[in-house]
Amino acid sequence: MAVVHGGGAAKEISNMSGKYLEDLGVGQVYRSGRITVEKERIKAFAAEFDPQPFHLDEDSARRSIFGGLAASGWHTAALTMRLLVESDFKPVGGIVGAGFDEFRWPAPVRPGDELHVESEVLEVRPSRSRPHQGLVKVRTTTKNQKGEAVQISVGNLVVPRRPTSVPGGSHAAAA
Amino acid sequence: MAVVHGGGAAKEISNMSGKYLEDLGVGQVYRSGRITVEKERIKAFAAEFDPQPFHLDEDSARRSIFGGLAASGWHTAALTMRLLVESDFKPVGGIVGAGFDEFRWPAPVRPGDELHVESEVLEVRPSRSRPHQGLVKVRTTTKNQKGEAVQISVGNLVVPRRPTSVPGGSHAAAA
Repeated sequence: MAVVHGGGAAKEISNMSGKYLEDLGVGQVYRSGRITVEKERIKAFAAEFDPQPFHLDEDSARRSIFGGLAASGWHTAALTMRLLVESDFKPVGGIVGAGFDEFRWPAPVRPGDELHVESEVLEVRPSRSRPHQGLVKVRTTTKNQKGEAVQISVGNLVVPRRPTSVPGGSHAAAA
Repeated sequence: MAVVHGGGAAKEISNMSGKYLEDLGVGQVYRSGRITVEKERIKAFAAEFDPQPFHLDEDSARRSIFGGLAASGWHTAALTMRLLVESDFKPVGGIVGAGFDEFRWPAPVRPGDELHVESEVLEVRPSRSRPHQGLVKVRTTTKNQKGEAVQISVGNLVVPRRPTSVPGGSHAAAA
């Protein structure tokens, strides 16, 4: 398992150099920066998208299955995306999901939690029907400040192939 | 396949009577109300959670894999949750997901699209380890105004069992 590098300092460089399918390899791990989940943002997100008592109100939340205020899972998912977009995992053409093999929230996100993301490349394969692109399977684990996983997904992303990588292509010969 | 009823008029009644595991049956379909996805909300959501050019800017979006401005998939997911929470599918204790067997976005959501949700109960089973609750497998399809599916998920929800449904229980006898 190769740790490529964390978020933060290298951001400006990686922003200028998106990754082609050929740049991604099984076992690569990309880490994000960190983000703190504020109580008021938990409530505001829930009010707009998931208005259930355990995401909106401390008293109701205490009596719920969560035993206290918890972020909507969709808030966690959205924050995970933010962290992923700002990490060094930057496919050319953007992070475009084709679907998930797995998606779950093993533990609740609480007010004040500090989240970060680790994404591991599980599989890289060229598309048979679309020669200019491929699919990359990535396990993305969102963790809190205690290292507990609060979201685990295994998703399949569409990533362009490097145009010059065609065997015999003029640019490939020059590379 | 039994269509239970749509969103809207019946909302006030169903708000007062959450569903126990015993109230849910395979083949039941719950339909939501409708929500229009505004262009400015697409951009605002993306700016906060998924700041990629094809969700933020029309010109960049035209040149991207989406061929035009598209909502973040997580925006679609969050709007789906909103529609689901406001539909008549109301488990006692709330909509609490244990994870997904399937999750994908077959088509992009565009500015001005009007979304609604259809949720079909695929499986209802009591928990072996936790006798007071069960798991319900639900396929939730988010559709646009043309009837195209923009999100399909198959999720497993935790739903409480009716306390009086224990065989021989006094309330069960009275029911």
